[in-house]
Amino acid sequence: PSARLGEMSISSRISRLAAIDGADHVLILRMEDIRWLTGFTGGTAQLLVRRSTHEAWLLVDGRYFERATDEIVSSRASVHIERVVPDVSTDEMIARIVGTSSLAVDPTHVTAHFMTVLQGHCSVVHERNQLDDLRRVKDDSEISLIASAAGIADNAFASLVSDGLFGKTEKQIRNRLDHLMREAGADDVAFDTIVATGPLGARPHHEPSDATVEDGHGVVIDFGAMVHGYKSDMTRTIRVGAVSAEYQRMFELVIEAEAAGIASVTAGISGSAVDAAARAVFLREGVDHEYVHGTGHGIGLYIHEQPILSPRCTAVLGVNEVVTVEPGLYRGGVGGVRIEDLVVVTGDSCRILTHTPKDLTCPRSPRTI
Amino acid sequence: PSARLGEMSISSRISRLAAIDGADHVLILRMEDIRWLTGFTGGTAQLLVRRSTHEAWLLVDGRYFERATDEIVSSRASVHIERVVPDVSTDEMIARIVGTSSLAVDPTHVTAHFMTVLQGHCSVVHERNQLDDLRRVKDDSEISLIASAAGIADNAFASLVSDGLFGKTEKQIRNRLDHLMREAGADDVAFDTIVATGPLGARPHHEPSDATVEDGHGVVIDFGAMVHGYKSDMTRTIRVGAVSAEYQRMFELVIEAEAAGIASVTAGISGSAVDAAARAVFLREGVDHEYVHGTGHGIGLYIHEQPILSPRCTAVLGVNEVVTVEPGLYRGGVGGVRIEDLVVVTGDSCRILTHTPKDLTCPRSPRTI
Repeated sequence: PSARLGEMSISSRISRLAAIDGADHVLILRMEDIRWLTGFTGGTAQLLVRRSTHEAWLLVDGRYFERATDEIVSSRASVHIERVVPDVSTDEMIARIVGTSSLAVDPTHVTAHFMTVLQGHCSVVHERNQLDDLRRVKDDSEISLIASAAGIADNAFASLVSDGLFGKTEKQIRNRLDHLMREAGADDVAFDTIVATGPLGARPHHEPSDATVEDGHGVVIDFGAMVHGYKSDMTRTIRVGAVSAEYQRMFELVIEAEAAGIASVTAGISGSAVDAAARAVFLREGVDHEYVHGTGHGIGLYIHEQPILSPRCTAVLGVNEVVTVEPGLYRGGVGGVRIEDLVVVTGDSCRILTHTPKDLTCPRSPRTI
Repeated sequence: PSARLGEMSISSRISRLAAIDGADHVLILRMEDIRWLTGFTGGTAQLLVRRSTHEAWLLVDGRYFERATDEIVSSRASVHIERVVPDVSTDEMIARIVGTSSLAVDPTHVTAHFMTVLQGHCSVVHERNQLDDLRRVKDDSEISLIASAAGIADNAFASLVSDGLFGKTEKQIRNRLDHLMREAGADDVAFDTIVATGPLGARPHHEPSDATVEDGHGVVIDFGAMVHGYKSDMTRTIRVGAVSAEYQRMFELVIEAEAAGIASVTAGISGSAVDAAARAVFLREGVDHEYVHGTGHGIGLYIHEQPILSPRCTAVLGVNEVVTVEPGLYRGGVGGVRIEDLVVVTGDSCRILTHTPKDLTCPRSPRTI
């Protein structure tokens, strides 16, 4: 039934884009946007939408023609499929369809080179791509896919933790977790899994290394699964053996901040207010300088979507938006703590899609792999 | 010793770029190019090179400052590290360094938006990035890393095949192969692994599905490993059980075409001549219309580098360039065959870096996973 819902909703998305005021045609260049509008999952394409008729043209090369035909039929989107030769006939095909009317292009989604090529053929208008806004509110099938991805990640993580972490390297933990997610049916991982143990946890974007999990380490694991293109995102921090009182205090503050952030999520709240709710805990304790990133972000076909929940965010959350809440503390020489859940806004509160417990510890035990 | 060679060679690369005639400064925006020039492996940065003094500035945000400092010291590159706030101070920092002199930007590597921002601050010259040419000839440490990646892929593939393929799904095969490469020490896979069984093999860019390997299928597996950023690339086609005489003939022609392509590789040959050597086999048999792609490509930090070995390629191969040779045949309703090796040009011939046998079969046997 969720696939069925997906088909019905995809077919209406081009019309929703076309109905927004703007230039006569809109050129869509990011593959996730094209997937959202048409159901096409290939690696390279351009999509042209004509606002007056709600028609669309998908430009693909020979490698993807057959897949495009299958997928467009399946999504019931109203799309003409045009075969092009990349770098040779793409711009000519666009010019032929646009004719003397105007063409909207988002200057942040196109190279300066291709913009110049297009300007040689068409009357180009710089127009912000409205897809970021259109994609914010998820339909039932999208929420179902994100929840499936989150469930796969929950299960994979439970297996990982039950095997123990002590004595393993960050890379071994990453490899195991990624494999568990793929084996459980994920298309792929949602993004490069972060595993940061002990002092390395103080780097929010640490990449898994050959560093080994030792007694007293906190291990930050930030990861997600992808199902039919939709992504999940979760972070847990696992205390291994006996952590210091200082680290334990950091851990408790992040748990408190995360709960405060989640408690604040409701339709109508601004992104900056969610951020402030989590950040207030760190401000109260005078450690807010150790909280070096924002509190969360939207998620869907992209791992980072609008809204970005930061102090500068003026966007207001709406029902059926899916966002992360992920405060953290990072202290040089000591380590890091980050706890992250994925929530869907339900109205006057939110529903949590990630179900892994947060108060996780692992024993100091003999190396098992 | 190879790491040592790598360090020595990295430190000279900025000077090689600076020595090429052009604008006063060059802005480098692609991360693999920045990694090649400086050793920095982070996810976001800009690099500015001043030709007159061979100085360089690496612009990074707070997330990557510490890593940049570590890695620049280690690579011995002559680089100033500047901390910037993305979308806020990046363009100002560039303007401050460039001053009233000229700035070369490759219009195919920058968004139209950022190009406009830069033009508001600096005297911008559109200049093709010469890095694609500079990166073509590999030094000893680069060849060693590519060979390491190819060796990991060889070993992983041997394990995969020894377990059998019959009865497994394409996704299961992909998951197993990717996991074996990561467990064997690959940083990651080099690109999304392709597994295409039976009739699905007729799609050159098929993505692994839930389709099951059956008796009589050819299974096309195109994959690679990544080691310290350097990539390998290999394709094998495995015949499972009893394939048709028609398919067997396709298989033999691809084996012959691949051998002809490899035999042609020598310093001084053009890319189009390598392509023609492989394609000649298919022309002779009247099946060249089923060979729908070029014969190969350079490889290194990118999976696809210059030169692209296609009928249109005028580039001439040089000693220590690393390229793939990968002819294939794709027949609707029947399936596909592709065989690909990775070779380094040695002078009057080439050295093959991929050592997996090509005449591979798997028994029709009970499902084992």
